[in-house]
Amino acid sequence: MTPDSEMIIPRDVRMRARSGHHTTITAGLVPGYVQTNLAILPRELAFDFLLFCQRNPKPCPLIEVVESGLSEPIVTAPGSDIRTDAPKYRVFRDGEIESEVQDILSIWNDKMVSFLLGCSFTFEAALIDAGIPIRHIDTETNVPMFITNIETNPAGPFSGPMVVTMRPIQQDKVVRAIQVSSRFPGVHGAPIHFGNPAIIGINDLDKPDMGDPVEIKDGEIPVFWACGVTPQAVAIRSKPSIMITHSPGHMFITDLKDEDLAVI
Amino acid sequence: MTPDSEMIIPRDVRMRARSGHHTTITAGLVPGYVQTNLAILPRELAFDFLLFCQRNPKPCPLIEVVESGLSEPIVTAPGSDIRTDAPKYRVFRDGEIESEVQDILSIWNDKMVSFLLGCSFTFEAALIDAGIPIRHIDTETNVPMFITNIETNPAGPFSGPMVVTMRPIQQDKVVRAIQVSSRFPGVHGAPIHFGNPAIIGINDLDKPDMGDPVEIKDGEIPVFWACGVTPQAVAIRSKPSIMITHSPGHMFITDLKDEDLAVI
Repeated sequence: MTPDSEMIIPRDVRMRARSGHHTTITAGLVPGYVQTNLAILPRELAFDFLLFCQRNPKPCPLIEVVESGLSEPIVTAPGSDIRTDAPKYRVFRDGEIESEVQDILSIWNDKMVSFLLGCSFTFEAALIDAGIPIRHIDTETNVPMFITNIETNPAGPFSGPMVVTMRPIQQDKVVRAIQVSSRFPGVHGAPIHFGNPAIIGINDLDKPDMGDPVEIKDGEIPVFWACGVTPQAVAIRSKPSIMITHSPGHMFITDLKDEDLAVI
Repeated sequence: MTPDSEMIIPRDVRMRARSGHHTTITAGLVPGYVQTNLAILPRELAFDFLLFCQRNPKPCPLIEVVESGLSEPIVTAPGSDIRTDAPKYRVFRDGEIESEVQDILSIWNDKMVSFLLGCSFTFEAALIDAGIPIRHIDTETNVPMFITNIETNPAGPFSGPMVVTMRPIQQDKVVRAIQVSSRFPGVHGAPIHFGNPAIIGINDLDKPDMGDPVEIKDGEIPVFWACGVTPQAVAIRSKPSIMITHSPGHMFITDLKDEDLAVI
C-alpha cells in the first residue's frame, strides 16, 4: 500500500509532462480525475468551434475554454500550462499532421483559444468501481479508437465523422455500463452504440484507426462511446490553417473529479 | 376531453404569436414541450456570450444557436421564425430596456446570432407528473423571478447576478422535486437553493423582481431554480449596444420534448 502522502495527483503528472519525464499515454492514471482532450485554434475560428462542441456534446463535451492570451485553465487546473502539461501534442496544418511534439511553446501565440473536452478515460474509474473491468487498462494499452460513418453536426467550417472508443463488456454487464456512464454526460455519457460494428461503419475491430486493438472474449459484446479525438477527424476534413490537439491517449489531466461532473 | 386532432401543438402557439393573436405568457402551455428563453446579440459578441453560456450551464442551458444570417431554429423548431414567434420581446440598448414589442422584424439585421436557452417551465410538466403541484400554474400567473446575490461566471464583457425562479413545494416532496428536475440539466436541472431566501440575497418573497408573487402555505418551503432570464440581468450590467430577449414568461416554444433532454 502506498501512503496517502505519496499518492499521485493530477499536478504530478502535469509537472512530469512539463519537464519531459512523462511522455506516454495516461490511460488508468490518477483514477477518478477528469482527463481532457485538447483542441487549440486561432481566435477567428473559436466561435465556430465552440458552436461545434455545443452541437456535438457527446463527442465534444466542453470542460473548460481558455480565452486567447491565456494558457492556464484556471478553473479546472490552476497553476497548469496548456502548452506544456500534456504528455504529447499533435500539430495539424491545413488538415494534415505536421508533427507530434512534447510542448507547443515554439508555435504558441496569444491569439489562440484552448478547448478542454471530457474524455472517456475518466468514467472508466466509475465502470471499474461498478465491477466492470476495462480490457485496455488490464492490458496496459491505449484504448482502441475508430472513425465511424456517423456524421457530426457541422458548425461553420467544422464537419467530419464521429470517432468512438470501444470497450468489450460482458453481455450481462452492458445495462449497468450504460447506467453508470449515463451519469457522466460531461465525459461522453452513455454509449452511442453496442453490438455489430458494421452498423456504424467499422469494418474490422482488430484494426483500430488509433490506439491498440483489444481481444473480445466469448460472451462479451463491443460497446462504443463517442470520443474526444473527434476534433482530430474534423481537422482532417475541415483543414483549419492550424489546430493543435493532444496526441491520442496522451491527455491533459485536470484537478476536477469525475464526481464533480455526475449529473445525478 | 379534446380529441387528439384538436390538441394544441407548439407550432400553433408560434403561429398565433406570429399573427399577433397570442401576446401573453406561455406558462403551462403545451406541457411536455421545451420552452426557451431568447438572447439575440450582434455577431461580434457571439463568442463571448456562447462562452458565458458554457460557463453558466444552470441559468443558461443552450438548446440551439442560430447563426448570423438565419432566423429559423432549424433543429428544434423547423419552419419557425425567431423574429416573430415568441409572444413578446424585450429590446435592451446599452443595458436599458428600450421597448417591449411583439416582433423584432424592424430591428433585425443579418449579423445577429440567436441563442435559445432552456426554461424551467418545461420541467414543470415532469414535476406535475410526479404529483408535485406548481402554484403559479394553478393560479394562472407568471412564475416569480428574483435577482440573487450569486454571481455568474463572467466571459468577455458578460457578467451579472444569477436570476432564479421560485416554487413553493411541500416539505415531504422536496427530495422528489430535486430528483425529478435533476433529470433535466438542459432546462436548468436541479434547484440551486431551498429554504431561507436571504442566503441567496432575496429579501422579500412577496416582491419578485419579475413575474407575480405566489402564496407559500404552511408546510411548504421555497425552492429556487436557476432561470433563463439571467441574460437580461447580465444585459443590464454588461450594457451590450443591443441585446434582444423574450419578455419574461413569454417564451419561444420548440418542437423538442422534455424527454428528449432527459439525461437518464
